[in-house]
Amino acid sequence: MKIYYYILFFNFVLISQTACQRHPNLTLTHEGVKDIRSNLGQVAYFDRVLSEVQEEVDSEINIGVQVPIPVDMAGGYSHERHKRNFVILQKAGNLYQITQDKKYAQYIKDNLMAYAKMYPTLPLHPTNKSYATGKIFWQCLNDANWLVYVSQAYDCIYDYLSEEERDYLEKDLFRPFADFLSVENPQFFNRIHNHSTWGNAAVGMIGLAMRDKELIDRALYGLPISEGNDLSKDNDGGFIYEKGMSKAGFLAQLDNAFAPDGYFTEGPYYLRYAIFPFLIFSKSLDNMQPELDIMNYRDGILQKAVFALLNQTDANGKFFPINDALKGMSWKARELITAVDIMYDQNPENTSLLSIAEKQDQVLLDDTGYRVAKAITDGKATPYSQSPAIYGDGKDGTEGGIGILRKDETCLVLKYSAQGMGHGHFDKLSYSLYDDTGEVAQDYGSARWVNIDQKGGGRYLKENKTFAKQTIAHNTLVVNETSHYEANIEKGEAHHPELHFVDFKDVNNQIISTIDKHAYDNVDMQRTMLMITDPSFPNPLIIDILKAKSESKNQYDLPFWYMGHVLSTNFDYTKSSATLSTLGTDYGYQHLWREAIGSPKDTIAGGTSQFTWLGNSKFYTSSFNSEPGDEIIFVRAGANDPEYNLRSDPAIIQRVRDGGNRLFVSVIESHGTYDHDTEIPLNPFSSIEKVSVLYDDALYSIIEVYAKDNQKWTIAISNQSADTTITHSISVGNKAIEWKGPFTINKTN
Amino acid sequence: MKIYYYILFFNFVLISQTACQRHPNLTLTHEGVKDIRSNLGQVAYFDRVLSEVQEEVDSEINIGVQVPIPVDMAGGYSHERHKRNFVILQKAGNLYQITQDKKYAQYIKDNLMAYAKMYPTLPLHPTNKSYATGKIFWQCLNDANWLVYVSQAYDCIYDYLSEEERDYLEKDLFRPFADFLSVENPQFFNRIHNHSTWGNAAVGMIGLAMRDKELIDRALYGLPISEGNDLSKDNDGGFIYEKGMSKAGFLAQLDNAFAPDGYFTEGPYYLRYAIFPFLIFSKSLDNMQPELDIMNYRDGILQKAVFALLNQTDANGKFFPINDALKGMSWKARELITAVDIMYDQNPENTSLLSIAEKQDQVLLDDTGYRVAKAITDGKATPYSQSPAIYGDGKDGTEGGIGILRKDETCLVLKYSAQGMGHGHFDKLSYSLYDDTGEVAQDYGSARWVNIDQKGGGRYLKENKTFAKQTIAHNTLVVNETSHYEANIEKGEAHHPELHFVDFKDVNNQIISTIDKHAYDNVDMQRTMLMITDPSFPNPLIIDILKAKSESKNQYDLPFWYMGHVLSTNFDYTKSSATLSTLGTDYGYQHLWREAIGSPKDTIAGGTSQFTWLGNSKFYTSSFNSEPGDEIIFVRAGANDPEYNLRSDPAIIQRVRDGGNRLFVSVIESHGTYDHDTEIPLNPFSSIEKVSVLYDDALYSIIEVYAKDNQKWTIAISNQSADTTITHSISVGNKAIEWKGPFTINKTN
Repeated sequence: MKIYYYILFFNFVLISQTACQRHPNLTLTHEGVKDIRSNLGQVAYFDRVLSEVQEEVDSEINIGVQVPIPVDMAGGYSHERHKRNFVILQKAGNLYQITQDKKYAQYIKDNLMAYAKMYPTLPLHPTNKSYATGKIFWQCLNDANWLVYVSQAYDCIYDYLSEEERDYLEKDLFRPFADFLSVENPQFFNRIHNHSTWGNAAVGMIGLAMRDKELIDRALYGLPISEGNDLSKDNDGGFIYEKGMSKAGFLAQLDNAFAPDGYFTEGPYYLRYAIFPFLIFSKSLDNMQPELDIMNYRDGILQKAVFALLNQTDANGKFFPINDALKGMSWKARELITAVDIMYDQNPENTSLLSIAEKQDQVLLDDTGYRVAKAITDGKATPYSQSPAIYGDGKDGTEGGIGILRKDETCLVLKYSAQGMGHGHFDKLSYSLYDDTGEVAQDYGSARWVNIDQKGGGRYLKENKTFAKQTIAHNTLVVNETSHYEANIEKGEAHHPELHFVDFKDVNNQIISTIDKHAYDNVDMQRTMLMITDPSFPNPLIIDILKAKSESKNQYDLPFWYMGHVLSTNFDYTKSSATLSTLGTDYGYQHLWREAIGSPKDTIAGGTSQFTWLGNSKFYTSSFNSEPGDEIIFVRAGANDPEYNLRSDPAIIQRVRDGGNRLFVSVIESHGTYDHDTEIPLNPFSSIEKVSVLYDDALYSIIEVYAKDNQKWTIAISNQSADTTITHSISVGNKAIEWKGPFTINKTN
Repeated sequence: MKIYYYILFFNFVLISQTACQRHPNLTLTHEGVKDIRSNLGQVAYFDRVLSEVQEEVDSEINIGVQVPIPVDMAGGYSHERHKRNFVILQKAGNLYQITQDKKYAQYIKDNLMAYAKMYPTLPLHPTNKSYATGKIFWQCLNDANWLVYVSQAYDCIYDYLSEEERDYLEKDLFRPFADFLSVENPQFFNRIHNHSTWGNAAVGMIGLAMRDKELIDRALYGLPISEGNDLSKDNDGGFIYEKGMSKAGFLAQLDNAFAPDGYFTEGPYYLRYAIFPFLIFSKSLDNMQPELDIMNYRDGILQKAVFALLNQTDANGKFFPINDALKGMSWKARELITAVDIMYDQNPENTSLLSIAEKQDQVLLDDTGYRVAKAITDGKATPYSQSPAIYGDGKDGTEGGIGILRKDETCLVLKYSAQGMGHGHFDKLSYSLYDDTGEVAQDYGSARWVNIDQKGGGRYLKENKTFAKQTIAHNTLVVNETSHYEANIEKGEAHHPELHFVDFKDVNNQIISTIDKHAYDNVDMQRTMLMITDPSFPNPLIIDILKAKSESKNQYDLPFWYMGHVLSTNFDYTKSSATLSTLGTDYGYQHLWREAIGSPKDTIAGGTSQFTWLGNSKFYTSSFNSEPGDEIIFVRAGANDPEYNLRSDPAIIQRVRDGGNRLFVSVIESHGTYDHDTEIPLNPFSSIEKVSVLYDDALYSIIEVYAKDNQKWTIAISNQSADTTITHSISVGNKAIEWKGPFTINKTN
């Protein structure tokens, strides 16, 4: 058995003597406490947080120490109690340092003693539902959460404890706890995965608190990896080890988990989760081992990740729910409070972070939080604005990515990223659309109710795999009722779409074009999306041009998961009256009720179908090209869902039965509003008159969008060359169209 | 043919000379304008409104006069344009008076001339969809709206016009307009109905502006009524004339449309609509004919109506959507701005109205609005608080009513009112429940999308009759799959439920009990509801005790329209997997998809079924008594709905197949919350352990509710006597229960 060790590119420096002498020195420092204490009563924002946290912790102290025998899944008593314990203990540690009131130290000590008494007696958690079952919780992941928080509490009362007490806690609780999370569970500790980031940070944080170099090294560099590691999978279907992986530990996470511009392959919901241990451990390392210069590691990857994360949000700061994400999570999450405080402290020139900290209405009760509160009080906050952006996926940023088109409060996310490991969905070139009211065209997110015991203990539900991950649950093309990569994660991990071109220079004409050649063997897809802002339209127009290329005849289904209620269509449809049945039998189709079937306008040369819906008191219309024989199917999720795990959300699906080469074009407008107090509809009708394909072949696609008042957009795309210097020329009918570069957008009226 | 004339109880006084001399003198008065003008720049709130209105009207003036030939239904161009015209003209009149800028007067004049030119040429509106088709709009109702507003504009520019211009307008436009709405459409003008209130006010307002005594009299006293008026119906299925009705006109409306405490039989949504002409015309009468003392007519019925209306709202000021109501309408509606301003002006001791005016963030641009703005600026606002209340229905307040149980932000509405004319629903003893997030257990409201052209021109849809009005769409008992009164409006109008007793003295133990003996021939219903506030529960508990009494065997269906998503049940259920069918064929059942069927816990002595749902990020549980053989049916609206007119809302239905005498008892808890940023569920589980019937016969019903920590409520009800002095005594098992009055609530632990 051959063993690789991680080779550092810089010399490891022993923990310096000065840092060693003083506690606390993880997230709260001895020097920071002095500063905070001497300014109490001066910074109202911080003082408010201090008194809120005191009230919270005091009320727990009144309840008394509660360290139950672990038995429950998430949502159950023992789970929620232990979870609350670690959060409260960390806060109590800071309170002890800041107020010097010994009741906080004593409360922590009493808790730790109770845990130290129980821990050696604990078997594995009785639930046995995880690939890495924990002891305090059902999975090692939650145990690692516990240790990350409690390490800080321990650091804060280190000097309050006698040497004998410390020896006891370290011997009976912390050291075995750290060993359990690492050497006893390498499948948890040694991955490139958010779980392992937590594991690494947990072992590292307690190592720093204990000044235990062995644990710190283990956290930074991981456990030895045997050469022929197997391909076993975790609970989410993700691989424990990537093929050929030879490094583990915290530094390897920093090297591998992020793309160079900070994108995290699982998506923003999971980055939000993972960023916390990255930052907490890094901040502690920065205090304890400044020589590592961890905050600038990999060209400042942590700062990039935080800014990428903040930008993967809608106008209300809610994260785009791509892949296995829960909806509603926003930059008010506690992990983002940590991220904003640490990143502002790291670089006080980032004053726009202060305006997010204002929205969060919370700061950390430590050095960084104090400095943020002080800066806000000093009026240093500047506006934070989200921007259009693309983020490359994969550790080199070359494995596809995501594109964010954005104007004011409207944003469009086009996902051409890699699979995203076990939490990835089979939705190549899918998109979702948001405005000030939230979701307009949704990504379903995951089929999971986190921490809600009544829904499978808060775990991923089986409908996550059978529906939420499947292609039909997303706004992208499904060929022959089969998901991308046949919903096979190994195939998915082997490929990724490519960015064809992107141009955000003209904020009123943002465009991105992406290509996928692997989701299906016999069909290539190219999706070009535009966000066009025009003075004669109240909101940005979204233009979607999806090219399906195939030499065979296939059934194409293009779903559109609108948020709202059907108002009208310009085509006839027949809705099932007294019985409903499912749309299909597999790949998520078994979960769709087929509510109605429509026939698009039957014109000789094809037509423009329109669908208007009302959502969040706004009027929206999708106008799309359709041909005789196409079907428009109205569906609703919820079939074959025996326990009401799915939301009953609606979608329309454009179905083409014998599609070969086909260009799907649609325009989405947000054209009007409805006021419930006045009952006045403003602009309830679409202004789009026609959407049509002027030309389409392997080289070029040219489409036209006609709108009221003789307005017309002509958009031409070069499907093969993205070279910005090449001039393209083509005759359509008796008209020559010429442009330079990969695309042209021409507006006339 | 015999003719009745309305006999006044006071002498009619001719319009006084002083009032006659000056314009304006309807809602804006000559004296008021002087006061406003001399204080411009002093009352910021009013100045802001003034400048907003100027901006709005100026932009319309820039567009220019637009008086299209009437062709469209609501939502269409000509409808929306004419509607906007009258709103803008009224505002322009006030602006002319306040700013003395003649462009506003000229704009009004140009519009009126265009209308005067068109009006004599107009046939009936081409839509022909109303029992009283209008000329400018599809129904006389909207024409009356127009005249109520435009009369005020005319009054404001009266002195700006030459005598010839006035003669022309009055001869070619206003007089024929008023005649059309009255003598040419008596079926519209002469009813006791909100439509006629508008008609009366329209004719009266223009009469006041024109100083035309004949029109004013016609408005006040109506047209002559022939003795044998027929029973024809309006578009909503309501009778044009009530049997034996002998009076019409505005005063008759005041006498008959309201109950003595201000309840309006159609419900708050329609009172909100009707209160506007009542108040605008009354305020104008008060200015022009103070001798009438209209504001104190019938012991101040208008003020009572306004306060009753303001109290028929949830914590967010949204009206309870009982009967044919659209949801979302709140006290921010323009009619309520008018109501609050006029009523504060009428009695400046009502300073709590000022805090509603603050929430409205708008005041009228007239005398009353100015005084409200000034009072707010002077800091006179005091808090407004909603209260528990009952309101009697019917003009004498003796035809049933509604009960509002309320604590903090939780409120429960129990509806035991009369039918409510054409807009009434067949839902005797139904209830709805609200909290700070809005609806918890909903009243579906109406199947209508007001002013949204795409949905049947904004009119009531056929599903309003086939679903929304039917009993199964409400939280009340359905016997043998047939709606109350067999959904026959004549039967419905003939009867009403009764209040048995009510006691709100103890705000922590609010109780109301109501009885219905007419909805079904063979089943009597009694519903007693409680709102119990207890320190060991985070929110008030709702206890619902519904007694069905019958000597025959019937199928009982008790629907519960919860708002949210099924989380868990304590009983097994089987959900349809691949096909769905409807629950029934008539009385609204044809619109319900039968999603799942559950069997309540099968215990020997009956059991307690529990259903927990998540709605608006809160956890709620309904715990109810059930017996072996009962079924719990999960349904969703939307079947037999070919045009997506219905919302796909869910309900559960407790079904008893061979019910005779049966006591349905349920407890609804709002026990927990979910935070999407922290993903922490607080208190996701019910604390109720058992709900049971201790005793039930014709005389008494005694129930028990068991909760955590050995808490127990025993509630005893006297089903026949509501006498508060009688002592009741009964032995159950070996225990004697004794109480005085119609009920007792006993809590032990």
